[in-house]
Amino acid sequence: MNTQHQITLAKRPEGLPGQEHFSFEKTDVPSPQKGEVLIQSIYISVDPYMRGRMEDTKSYVEPFQVGRVIDGGVVGKVVESESDKFSKGDYVIGHLGWKEYSTARESIIRKVDKNLAPLSAYLGVLGMPGLTAYFGMTDIGQPEDGETVVISGAAGAVGMIAGQIAKVHGAKVIGIAGSDEKVSLLKEDAGFDEAINYKTTSDIHTALREACPNGVDVYFDNVGGEISDAVYPLLNDFARIPQCGAISSYNKGGDDVGPRIQTYMIKARVRLQGFIVSDYADRFDEGAKQLGMWLQEGKLTYKETINEGFDKIPDAFLGLFSGENTGKQLIKVAEE
Amino acid sequence: MNTQHQITLAKRPEGLPGQEHFSFEKTDVPSPQKGEVLIQSIYISVDPYMRGRMEDTKSYVEPFQVGRVIDGGVVGKVVESESDKFSKGDYVIGHLGWKEYSTARESIIRKVDKNLAPLSAYLGVLGMPGLTAYFGMTDIGQPEDGETVVISGAAGAVGMIAGQIAKVHGAKVIGIAGSDEKVSLLKEDAGFDEAINYKTTSDIHTALREACPNGVDVYFDNVGGEISDAVYPLLNDFARIPQCGAISSYNKGGDDVGPRIQTYMIKARVRLQGFIVSDYADRFDEGAKQLGMWLQEGKLTYKETINEGFDKIPDAFLGLFSGENTGKQLIKVAEE
Repeated sequence: MNTQHQITLAKRPEGLPGQEHFSFEKTDVPSPQKGEVLIQSIYISVDPYMRGRMEDTKSYVEPFQVGRVIDGGVVGKVVESESDKFSKGDYVIGHLGWKEYSTARESIIRKVDKNLAPLSAYLGVLGMPGLTAYFGMTDIGQPEDGETVVISGAAGAVGMIAGQIAKVHGAKVIGIAGSDEKVSLLKEDAGFDEAINYKTTSDIHTALREACPNGVDVYFDNVGGEISDAVYPLLNDFARIPQCGAISSYNKGGDDVGPRIQTYMIKARVRLQGFIVSDYADRFDEGAKQLGMWLQEGKLTYKETINEGFDKIPDAFLGLFSGENTGKQLIKVAEE
Repeated sequence: MNTQHQITLAKRPEGLPGQEHFSFEKTDVPSPQKGEVLIQSIYISVDPYMRGRMEDTKSYVEPFQVGRVIDGGVVGKVVESESDKFSKGDYVIGHLGWKEYSTARESIIRKVDKNLAPLSAYLGVLGMPGLTAYFGMTDIGQPEDGETVVISGAAGAVGMIAGQIAKVHGAKVIGIAGSDEKVSLLKEDAGFDEAINYKTTSDIHTALREACPNGVDVYFDNVGGEISDAVYPLLNDFARIPQCGAISSYNKGGDDVGPRIQTYMIKARVRLQGFIVSDYADRFDEGAKQLGMWLQEGKLTYKETINEGFDKIPDAFLGLFSGENTGKQLIKVAEE
């Protein structure tokens, strides 16, 4: 029997996670049972929300278990099938383990078409990040023609799509990101009207005020923290905040303090709404269809950072918290 | 010509306001022009939101001007009329100055009926505080039968009504207030299911958890600060926060820091929405009618703290920030 590698949660982190929280193991490649397939992983997704799953606290998604394989979005190829619905050679997507090979029941995977879009896109612009951007922006943000939209974490997998969706709706879009390369990408490739490098700007408050002379109507927030502190004073009456993430907080635990925001919310009558993509599960078809159309029409540009090699998964995950990725962070663990 | 007293803003406060920010002046009693009436003030309202108007910052309501008369809700009696719509002896309500006598154009005042409700009630349960509670709770909070609703500042003019409206909707209601007398009032008179004295409770987190074994579905927040910090971890999925006030923040300026809340908002997909009553101006009739019906049906109890004497206005206002009032704080400055 063949062996493969898998990655388990070695222990729970306090604060910033590191390599020591992951454990590489060798295990047998399983055989599919009736109604199952064996999938070779090709692209493995790492996402900021996974930091929350490393904690043992009640949340919207079950915590990873210490000693158990970590799981997330995976695109792979069917290499053995005991299912009538899938054939050897089919490309599929599913929520699977950080393993080189997984068996899966046919009900938890679906086929993806390599001819319609690159395989990796099904984990990005056409997958959870794209859907997150779509529902957060259209359902909560509701940008209108001529309004000003600010996006934090703008060069991330979600932020970049969120900004382009706001552009489709006729808004002026300002991105906040952490490098000059990301700023260029947002302005030149993704069509953002303005982008600010928060790491090199000496005064983020002034930079934002200059970029948003008419105030801020929608703040699509992926980061929280000091960047958000700088946006709140600029919110216009009846502004909306799709609270998508708060990556600056995820590793801080109880030390994460800052200016209280309630007074801003009252003065401008702001609606701040936390959301997660799975709340919109019954509308995924709508979202995927719309994103696919915009992609075909050339209205959406997306970006990926793809590291190679199964052993690079923890590094790629940890890099999310220092902003090393541009766009969707993936790890390619086998050839297509 | 007769003289009267009026109160102006002497200077803008930084931090907690005091007597020194108010100036008492003597001025002539004016004469009404055509289309105006002369009103003798009877009840003058002081409200927490006025603290914001003492600052020279953009907000939803114009700042008070240094050297100019402070204004707010007043119920008074027409003592001279040059209007066809009002007669001497009519009782009226309007947004008027902190003066013993005011002239007012007929368009900015309306009659109130002393036989339907006590005059003072038009500044409380049937006035802005009641309408604030009504729209915040019904439009944003939307409590459902069996849900748990927590109210901070629960023994204030708005909080007490908000809790009773939630009871009308079948919710379990927990109030947070600052004295044992207020706790008794909420439980015994206002029908709250539970009430917590945050000043004597050694552990507000535990007290809240015990009072809310099923978590919190609606948090009607009047105070912000550490009390809100204790509520956020208990929020259920899809909880709503009508952000009505943040009185604990009003006097703190930039020193008001606390745990960041964005992660809570995401995990439970909370909707936090700031509002002010004037946003609902086109629905005031609906609100006043409903509040009046509930009052007649005995479903609403209200409470007032009435200080006597024009010279007591600043004291009564300042007392709002130390929680000296129970229910609506008014100053009676003349006999009815």
